[in-house]
Amino acid sequence: MVSKVADEPQMLSKKAGCNSHGQDSSYFLGWEEYEKNPFDPVTNPTGIIQMGLAENQALARFMSEQRGYKVAFAPSNIVLTAGATSANEALMFCLADQGDAFLIPTPYYPGFDRDLKWRTGAEIVPVHCTSGNGFRVTRAALDDAYRRAQKRRLRVKGVLITNPSNPLGTAVPRADLEMILDFVAAKGIHLVSDEIYSGTAFVPDSFVSVLEVLPSTRAMADRVHVVYSLSKDLGLPGFRVGAIYSSNPGVVSAATKMSSFGLMSSQTQHLLAALLGDKDFTRKYLAENKRRIRERRDQLVDGLKEIGIACLDSNAGLFCWVDMGHLMTQHGRSFEGEMALWKKVVFEVGLNISPGSSCHCREPGWFRVCFANMSAKTLDVAMQRLRAFVETTTNSKGGSALRRAPAAPARSMSCPLAMNMKWALRLTPVSADRKAER
Amino acid sequence: MVSKVADEPQMLSKKAGCNSHGQDSSYFLGWEEYEKNPFDPVTNPTGIIQMGLAENQALARFMSEQRGYKVAFAPSNIVLTAGATSANEALMFCLADQGDAFLIPTPYYPGFDRDLKWRTGAEIVPVHCTSGNGFRVTRAALDDAYRRAQKRRLRVKGVLITNPSNPLGTAVPRADLEMILDFVAAKGIHLVSDEIYSGTAFVPDSFVSVLEVLPSTRAMADRVHVVYSLSKDLGLPGFRVGAIYSSNPGVVSAATKMSSFGLMSSQTQHLLAALLGDKDFTRKYLAENKRRIRERRDQLVDGLKEIGIACLDSNAGLFCWVDMGHLMTQHGRSFEGEMALWKKVVFEVGLNISPGSSCHCREPGWFRVCFANMSAKTLDVAMQRLRAFVETTTNSKGGSALRRAPAAPARSMSCPLAMNMKWALRLTPVSADRKAER
Repeated sequence: MVSKVADEPQMLSKKAGCNSHGQDSSYFLGWEEYEKNPFDPVTNPTGIIQMGLAENQALARFMSEQRGYKVAFAPSNIVLTAGATSANEALMFCLADQGDAFLIPTPYYPGFDRDLKWRTGAEIVPVHCTSGNGFRVTRAALDDAYRRAQKRRLRVKGVLITNPSNPLGTAVPRADLEMILDFVAAKGIHLVSDEIYSGTAFVPDSFVSVLEVLPSTRAMADRVHVVYSLSKDLGLPGFRVGAIYSSNPGVVSAATKMSSFGLMSSQTQHLLAALLGDKDFTRKYLAENKRRIRERRDQLVDGLKEIGIACLDSNAGLFCWVDMGHLMTQHGRSFEGEMALWKKVVFEVGLNISPGSSCHCREPGWFRVCFANMSAKTLDVAMQRLRAFVETTTNSKGGSALRRAPAAPARSMSCPLAMNMKWALRLTPVSADRKAER
Repeated sequence: MVSKVADEPQMLSKKAGCNSHGQDSSYFLGWEEYEKNPFDPVTNPTGIIQMGLAENQALARFMSEQRGYKVAFAPSNIVLTAGATSANEALMFCLADQGDAFLIPTPYYPGFDRDLKWRTGAEIVPVHCTSGNGFRVTRAALDDAYRRAQKRRLRVKGVLITNPSNPLGTAVPRADLEMILDFVAAKGIHLVSDEIYSGTAFVPDSFVSVLEVLPSTRAMADRVHVVYSLSKDLGLPGFRVGAIYSSNPGVVSAATKMSSFGLMSSQTQHLLAALLGDKDFTRKYLAENKRRIRERRDQLVDGLKEIGIACLDSNAGLFCWVDMGHLMTQHGRSFEGEMALWKKVVFEVGLNISPGSSCHCREPGWFRVCFANMSAKTLDVAMQRLRAFVETTTNSKGGSALRRAPAAPARSMSCPLAMNMKWALRLTPVSADRKAER
């Protein structure tokens, strides 16, 4: 198959390719000339002082560490942004024009509707994943989404995945990454891999970066872009440290210009370079962080099991993907039922969880439950509240629908890495009431 | 005249009015509910800790101080952004749809082509100002720009001014602000006043904020928006602290959502609140800063006078607007001549200055010269280099064009605050070679 190359004009957005950013004007060219004249306190005391590189180098090293040193990152291919939110939007501006589409597997992070679509005018076409295979992306689902985009006369510019997945809490298996790369190569489109949860992959070797499996051709290097952030992996959301990593010179150039709209403060950059430069600290931090995430995840999963609630088996992330379909006493297995249950959980039980429908999940009854932003004690309180609620709910359903918390641990869901559909046939009614996507 | 009101749908952009930001989804609503439950260490230990208000309050006080306490700022009407670059773009996204236009007086900051147009798809229609009246904005020039926009079938959504002006180094006189407000009221459009240089106004009472002259009607309050930043007034460009101030609830709401694309780091916000909270420090800083700016400005203006170069009389800013038209020995008084001169000054003389054409000035020969980013000694070196260049240039022009640095101080240009066209008739050839705008 012959894939399109990066310098074909339609590969990037019109914005990325055009000169309406005005940065080739003599105003900016003057500054560039000045920058060729670097500061030296003795030999060139009036030269420019460069303050923008240390962070790129430190971040490149850290991103490599995060991926077990299996991938090397070139500092010059990193564009720093004010958080991953900004990185994702900038990539959309670079790759898609108004009305162009990206395919995104469901369930997906609800913020993407704002981050990717709102100001760019790009469209999201969902790639419907289901509990039948643990919500893994399939070629059939990608092809189906592509056809739906074509029906809507949308030009598909790429696929965007979150790896590890938010909200599933699972890393994308290597075989799936290879399948997705084949798909984008065949269609001549981009792949954006949002890897902001890579450092939370607490099961050894579960996370594989797309850059590890990327074929080493220019055409493929030009079409794969990674989004990264320190918000999750170092627990520093307030720092607003995001990054785009791309080997496509057009993307790096346009995204660098766009980074003017969301630069990090220099004092934050300075602190960051010092923090990331301390290898001993980052190594220990990452290991301890994973250990604690796993411990808290186990606490949540065990607590839910005891009251008869099953989760998708996770290996990453700060949340679990939880099936509470059997607790939907109103409206049956429908999205109305899901919303009714969600309202009860938020307003009566007092737990803020996210309904699957807000993540564009096609099967009602799933919820994203975060466990990492609280102490073990608070998580215990949350489980006690949920237990009381479950007992009331299952009792009030009467004999016909009575489901008590089983004495023995409830069924746990299969790990998506080891495909096993038996549990899904047991837990997910084939006749599940499905609503049009919203 | 009946002006349009803010809740008319066409007043704001489609983006600002629509729900494609997705923040009304249950995902975000859940968070909102959670936020109604504020943290208290004893009575509500699991509540939310609010960390986003101290900076708004501190900045509101500082902005008021900056304007001599003649204007009060409501902290809830401030939207913090990662620098003024981001604030200006967000305002465009809020007020203009693709293909809508803003009128901007020339010469204007070259970065606006990137900041206002590039990603928003909005257009800039220049309001041509000339040396004839010290580059002041006139109603005739506004009407002319409005007509040109209509001819291009662009919908005009507003006027954007920089006050004090970058690159002129002059504050907009009160009478001109009133005239511009009349214009926007008559047309039912917006006024964005970029006041990031307000703290550099070193002549007492020269700077008047648009908010001081704003009629106290709801309709007018809804259409006037101020952009602010600490980059210039506190010399903190690296902090990336920008702000939108607006009394229009639709703008505040949409801009707040957009601020997710360029948030300040929490540690920078923390430092900022402490810094701005120190009234004694800010008062002394502002006074000393203005004193030093004026001193350095005088050094530049006097140095230029001695070698026969005149400037527009300034009262603010970190730069002067300098007429070097008589040094354009190639191509005569044309933009080719200006570029040829600019290249000589950058590459041969070794000074990075900005040609007026990059600021969309319609008269060739003007340059923006910054003076505040260097020591007095460095400025001396710059003046010596320029003197040598002027002497070579005027000598090489031969007898017919010979212009030596006069023994007596050269003519200084009139202050735009006191309209005086005599100097202009002397210095600016009426037959000035004008090129199509670029």
